[in-house]
Amino acid sequence: MFFASDNWAGAHPAIARSLVEAADGFASAYGTSDLDKRVEKAFCEIFERDVAVFFVGTGTAANSLALASFNRPGGQVFCHREAHVNVDECNAPEFFATGSKLVPIDGTAGKLQPEALAAAIGRFPPDFVHGGQPMAVTLTQATEAGTTYTLDEISALSEVTKQAGLPLHMDGARFANALVHLGATPAEMTWKRGVDILSFGGTKNGCWCAEALVLFDPGKARQMHYLRKRSAQLFSKSRFIAAQFDAYFREGLWLDLARHSNGMANRLAAGFATSDKARLAWPTGSNELFAIIRNDAMKTLKDKGAVFYDWPASPALKATMRDDETLVRLVASYATSQADVDNFLSML
Amino acid sequence: MFFASDNWAGAHPAIARSLVEAADGFASAYGTSDLDKRVEKAFCEIFERDVAVFFVGTGTAANSLALASFNRPGGQVFCHREAHVNVDECNAPEFFATGSKLVPIDGTAGKLQPEALAAAIGRFPPDFVHGGQPMAVTLTQATEAGTTYTLDEISALSEVTKQAGLPLHMDGARFANALVHLGATPAEMTWKRGVDILSFGGTKNGCWCAEALVLFDPGKARQMHYLRKRSAQLFSKSRFIAAQFDAYFREGLWLDLARHSNGMANRLAAGFATSDKARLAWPTGSNELFAIIRNDAMKTLKDKGAVFYDWPASPALKATMRDDETLVRLVASYATSQADVDNFLSML
Amino acid sequence: MFFASDNWAGAHPAIARSLVEAADGFASAYGTSDLDKRVEKAFCEIFERDVAVFFVGTGTAANSLALASFNRPGGQVFCHREAHVNVDECNAPEFFATGSKLVPIDGTAGKLQPEALAAAIGRFPPDFVHGGQPMAVTLTQATEAGTTYTLDEISALSEVTKQAGLPLHMDGARFANALVHLGATPAEMTWKRGVDILSFGGTKNGCWCAEALVLFDPGKARQMHYLRKRSAQLFSKSRFIAAQFDAYFREGLWLDLARHSNGMANRLAAGFATSDKARLAWPTGSNELFAIIRNDAMKTLKDKGAVFYDWPASPALKATMRDDETLVRLVASYATSQADVDNFLSML
Amino acid sequence: MFFASDNWAGAHPAIARSLVEAADGFASAYGTSDLDKRVEKAFCEIFERDVAVFFVGTGTAANSLALASFNRPGGQVFCHREAHVNVDECNAPEFFATGSKLVPIDGTAGKLQPEALAAAIGRFPPDFVHGGQPMAVTLTQATEAGTTYTLDEISALSEVTKQAGLPLHMDGARFANALVHLGATPAEMTWKRGVDILSFGGTKNGCWCAEALVLFDPGKARQMHYLRKRSAQLFSKSRFIAAQFDAYFREGLWLDLARHSNGMANRLAAGFATSDKARLAWPTGSNELFAIIRNDAMKTLKDKGAVFYDWPASPALKATMRDDETLVRLVASYATSQADVDNFLSML
Repeated sequence: MFFASDNWAGAHPAIARSLVEAADGFASAYGTSDLDKRVEKAFCEIFERDVAVFFVGTGTAANSLALASFNRPGGQVFCHREAHVNVDECNAPEFFATGSKLVPIDGTAGKLQPEALAAAIGRFPPDFVHGGQPMAVTLTQATEAGTTYTLDEISALSEVTKQAGLPLHMDGARFANALVHLGATPAEMTWKRGVDILSFGGTKNGCWCAEALVLFDPGKARQMHYLRKRSAQLFSKSRFIAAQFDAYFREGLWLDLARHSNGMANRLAAGFATSDKARLAWPTGSNELFAIIRNDAMKTLKDKGAVFYDWPASPALKATMRDDETLVRLVASYATSQADVDNFLSML
Repeated sequence: MFFASDNWAGAHPAIARSLVEAADGFASAYGTSDLDKRVEKAFCEIFERDVAVFFVGTGTAANSLALASFNRPGGQVFCHREAHVNVDECNAPEFFATGSKLVPIDGTAGKLQPEALAAAIGRFPPDFVHGGQPMAVTLTQATEAGTTYTLDEISALSEVTKQAGLPLHMDGARFANALVHLGATPAEMTWKRGVDILSFGGTKNGCWCAEALVLFDPGKARQMHYLRKRSAQLFSKSRFIAAQFDAYFREGLWLDLARHSNGMANRLAAGFATSDKARLAWPTGSNELFAIIRNDAMKTLKDKGAVFYDWPASPALKATMRDDETLVRLVASYATSQADVDNFLSML
Repeated sequence: MFFASDNWAGAHPAIARSLVEAADGFASAYGTSDLDKRVEKAFCEIFERDVAVFFVGTGTAANSLALASFNRPGGQVFCHREAHVNVDECNAPEFFATGSKLVPIDGTAGKLQPEALAAAIGRFPPDFVHGGQPMAVTLTQATEAGTTYTLDEISALSEVTKQAGLPLHMDGARFANALVHLGATPAEMTWKRGVDILSFGGTKNGCWCAEALVLFDPGKARQMHYLRKRSAQLFSKSRFIAAQFDAYFREGLWLDLARHSNGMANRLAAGFATSDKARLAWPTGSNELFAIIRNDAMKTLKDKGAVFYDWPASPALKATMRDDETLVRLVASYATSQADVDNFLSML
Repeated sequence: MFFASDNWAGAHPAIARSLVEAADGFASAYGTSDLDKRVEKAFCEIFERDVAVFFVGTGTAANSLALASFNRPGGQVFCHREAHVNVDECNAPEFFATGSKLVPIDGTAGKLQPEALAAAIGRFPPDFVHGGQPMAVTLTQATEAGTTYTLDEISALSEVTKQAGLPLHMDGARFANALVHLGATPAEMTWKRGVDILSFGGTKNGCWCAEALVLFDPGKARQMHYLRKRSAQLFSKSRFIAAQFDAYFREGLWLDLARHSNGMANRLAAGFATSDKARLAWPTGSNELFAIIRNDAMKTLKDKGAVFYDWPASPALKATMRDDETLVRLVASYATSQADVDNFLSML
């Protein structure tokens, strides 16, 4: 019963098989092979427009390169306080975009609010050189709290961003989970709502190592080639990343996998709703679920082999919790079985 | 007939298979799984001592992190003029070790000479702050010129390095090829000869993506954990790199693959030796071969489908070449067949 | 009636004169002249121990170099939310210490509290690589809020810092003002209370450009020579900075100037205490004063030529203010006259 | 008899006096005072066009900021091998323009040759991402070898630079010396010949600390405000730099000072021409002189109190020297007296 993280899962059989198929024969290196080119085209089809695609090795790399591409001296990047870039990337964004600063913004259930975003940007008036200058906005879809922005919420944040003359980055480490939750198309959830650059994650959804930067304005892609190489993220045998995406996209596998993991999270959520030992911290909108659980129940679950993490509660949430309760995170993946979910719930 | 680069090959079947085997089941992430730990132990056995091992995604990452770990303000890194770090990594080493500088040193057949190294270091006298300060020495084994340092040559460079109080890095992108050429053990070719940190490459020798930083003093490994993560090189599903190394090391596969590719390069070299259209630029000491070839012969070969690169000749070498000759590089890999070699030679 | 900032003043006549005296004759460059050496010794006497001293051009340089000297990948620097390094240095600290991050901590009247500091550090548990690692603590004396830490308050913060194994930096842009407010010695206010490195500012207290980094452990000074030069802060005609400090220290001029500006701020404060149009936001402890003032009174003062800045109020302070009130900052300097103060107060 | 460097001199009396005059009264800080604005206008007049001017503290800062303003990932900056940026700035240019690389180019008597420059740029073909990309060209006027480019030589280098689509920086640490040597106007020696950005040095020519970055396209100046502040080079009491330039430009003082120091260097050169113990290494074109001198004569001079530096000779020059000869550098400044020159020559 592993609910620790979706990156505890391995790789879906179809994706694992794709690596074997790609292993044979010679192909030109560094992203120039036929397979690389073909998968780049698949991205254009999926997003219904010309896009520039850059394969990289990790989500941290995708995020950091995206922000680095907007680099400005004294640059301020606006993000949610719990954003992965802010709390889980060991200053990689600051390192890649030398001297940039992340400005954390509070927001319930992992979501940035347009007013709070506008207020944060407003604290950096034009030409007050001492404080630095706004540089970019980044939002996470699905969020780190397991919620998903609606299309209109994205538009509202995008509008604030554009009014400030800033580019908008989306960290899509769990892009597919958000997509199937909304029932939207990739285009609708990104450039049609003002997203300029996307970290498109495959790793958490059944690939072993498949992340891509997607630039919706290919005319701005030239410097990214050098940024990626300078950051040691240009893979010689790039075709193996391409192969994973090839299998990932084939017959909608990626959406099926996300539907499965979201479904498992929802099944867990339904179970929590009827428990008297636990309750959801907020509604679930992807494959992650956050719950407030009685400490004795938590102990029982862990003793019986359930693996999941405690999670730091914000002061506001903490105020609603009893002393004998803990906030926990459970993550479902493509590999999570219904049996494991039901077993967990019965133990709860 | 692909002799363009060893990274045009795919992945050896046993290694491809290891990826499928690793795909199943849950395992803790970020390098903490049992498989990760087991492979780290294998490195200790192979090097006959406790070592600290860090998996990363590319050779450029391994090299850049190694040098970054020695970072000093105004730091000067001494390397061969044709070293990969100097000419093929798009300033990644300078970026990772902010503000460091590579000091290129000339040397025939890709090799640093101890006297030249000592002279280069000597141009940075202690406490002349304007010029910066020596920071590290890096050598490539096998070299970019397809040659291999003897153990005594490594010792001689190491001695100069230690006298200057500097750490010694070895770029082992083609470590196995050098090893089997010398018939040495990994320990003999590294720490027993004064190497402090090693970029251990598997990708060019039959893996798809398996590179490791090896620190021979594990007591100095703490900061590398943060350096790696900050550089976006910590893979969540790290077990897939571990799996490749696991298969790579099993029953000496890695040495067999290197022996094969070296053998193919030697077979090519033997053919060149008897050709009147071409001659070796210098003796071959790994799986790479550099030859001076008549332009008409080169055209014929390329027209018939042989794929290989022209290579820039140093001024000294150029002086020995005729106007209708070109320097070329041919690289054999685990996937190079004897038939391809013989076919190539018969066309020559 | 200029109360905008102490850096709106010029240079005290004795210090201006010192620049003329230093102008004559030849002297060796880059900090090696007799005068440079003599002033370095004066620092040792003032601090009652061997210290290493590095002259630089700006306070931002001193602060940024201090933090850069503790550089660690993924490094977190703990500071007050309103610290100059955090809000007024355009990411220079993050740039100089590539990839470091400032962790802002709330605290009333510009002061860090030991419990809050401990809690902030505690959010970066050892070996959780994703979040980065603690790197340093920095406090400002006098604070940006015009208050001054007592010696015991410094000790308390130092204790938390040392327990976490971290170095402690003091931003002493207004060092002299704090010193005379406390009636302490330089040694008592720094190394005797656990400060490891000090930005010693002269510019705001009557010099035109005289800032110094003071390292209380001279054995750790070697790399600072390179850090300073690499940051373009090594002045060729360094003797002109030395000359300013020479005049600054002569017969206690520096303390006299600070006493004067503190006195002017206190005279202002006494006036505010009796006003029905304004009140102090908190007690004044240096040459800066923060007051909540009625908007109509503020308008009158500005119309009549008083120059001073509005200041952003924290949410907590704002809650105590009426709608027709504004937080303002007034700064006295060595050049502020009693007549100006009295004139200002009579207008209020 | 101090010929060690022009930065061993102090400050011209008129400039020292300007610091006293600027010391009185209040003025707005950070470069916004009336005096700052007035001096910026003086720069526009001197250069016969609108320019953007940024005062900074050191020549290293000016050079490094200039190059940083052209920053590109994997960027290559082309310069003479002996350029100050390459050998005397402790990697500050590489640090300010994170990850950039200086490509040193040989050239006799300190001068870049257009063919060599074109060849060096040509080694970075477009879209070969591994090697990085050209980023800027920088030339030094007067050169580090005491020579001065003619206007046509500047044009020839500029043409190569523009053909490669690159910006051209001029390190004018000894700008005035070159100017009076050529008898050209500032406009003729810079933007009229294709220079885009200039480090305008006053320190070596009689100021104590007055350096300015001059951007010939003010439309590109916005980011420089942030770059300068982020690099800790924005001085609060900026008016003291402005005051120095004010005095420097008044009634052509700056040109008079340069004429004097060039004259002293020429007088030295004339003396060397008639000596049988020494000879000029190449003709002098500013206030610096390089000579090959017999070791016994050198010893005598130093014993008698002449202060000057030995200088590393290039291999080509070394080949023309006898074993008992040394290359030396002598620098004249505004403060060098005719008596000192004659005294030196009589001892020679």
